[in-house]
Amino acid sequence: MQSDGHRRGRRPGPSDSRADILRASRQLFATFGYERTTIRGIAREAAVDPALVHHFFGTKDRLFEVSLQLPVNLAEAIPALVGPGLDGLGERLTRFYLSLWESESAAAMLTVLRTAVSQDRAAALLRRFVGREVIGKLATELNQPNPQLRAALVGSQLVGVAMVRYVVQVEPLASMSREQVVAAVSPTVQRYLAGDLGQL
Amino acid sequence: MQSDGHRRGRRPGPSDSRADILRASRQLFATFGYERTTIRGIAREAAVDPALVHHFFGTKDRLFEVSLQLPVNLAEAIPALVGPGLDGLGERLTRFYLSLWESESAAAMLTVLRTAVSQDRAAALLRRFVGREVIGKLATELNQPNPQLRAALVGSQLVGVAMVRYVVQVEPLASMSREQVVAAVSPTVQRYLAGDLGQL
Repeated sequence: MQSDGHRRGRRPGPSDSRADILRASRQLFATFGYERTTIRGIAREAAVDPALVHHFFGTKDRLFEVSLQLPVNLAEAIPALVGPGLDGLGERLTRFYLSLWESESAAAMLTVLRTAVSQDRAAALLRRFVGREVIGKLATELNQPNPQLRAALVGSQLVGVAMVRYVVQVEPLASMSREQVVAAVSPTVQRYLAGDLGQL
Repeated sequence: MQSDGHRRGRRPGPSDSRADILRASRQLFATFGYERTTIRGIAREAAVDPALVHHFFGTKDRLFEVSLQLPVNLAEAIPALVGPGLDGLGERLTRFYLSLWESESAAAMLTVLRTAVSQDRAAALLRRFVGREVIGKLATELNQPNPQLRAALVGSQLVGVAMVRYVVQVEPLASMSREQVVAAVSPTVQRYLAGDLGQL
């Protein structure tokens, strides 16, 4: 497959196109932010057809997740977790989140955490993304009053457990089995999802 | 006040002695860690009498806290919070912790958080300190079964709220009043302090 003239630069093959798209998307997301970056703009920058971007990465969300090296497709994972209903949702969310930290995705999770608290250029972007695309997505799926607050509180408990168990590694939380942590923490997550949140 | 010969270096006055002690303590804590650093060693490095270190900073704990720029004397604050008893302790701890983040100490709190997740040399030291001197101190004060786990779980919720409210600034948690956050979060903290933690 050679450059066909109206595309810029060398185009040695599809695997390079994928890398070119990722490089272009990281550059545009970092420069213009999530909102102002478009699939068309990324395609232009990578000198490929927009259809190829969709082919490799699906949506803009997913492309951003991949460019952040998030280990999971949240647009699929969150609805799948919420789907079976509010009963036991706290437990399912907690178990799912801990399993990400106990898989080969742990390094990526730590990078996301480090980036979020850093002063890097990517930090503000990541914070906006986490706020809207992670917590916002959970809120959208919740059929409850104050869904955004509930989702934010769930996020607070889950990110805090990660800090204490995996980053600071405080005992006995660091060494307990995943299911013991699920048992201790998921009633909190369940209350945030479905319980009383005090005077709002 | 001049150098008296068996002390090393210039000693222009007491305010410089305090700065010399802090500089020496930061260097020794970073190099040798918390355990292997002594008040005597710091005094030797700063070319002052050990009594002067005690005069300025009290205990080694406190000196370490000051060298970390922690905004509060935890050795006094935690017992004072626990003192009135288990009733309402979740609320008192949550309110106290949020007030630190909403005072002129906010920058210091953020630095501690950033350091804890960083790959800096200070990170391991800080993690050990947080584990033992913050969470450990709360555990020591708790007259409950599984005090160390309870304190670690309290820490997980509080650090997570700070991440979501102050660092990532997810709405509506970021803009709610402190008392609204206390109302939503402190039942969690209270359960970790005094409630059922599942099968351990």
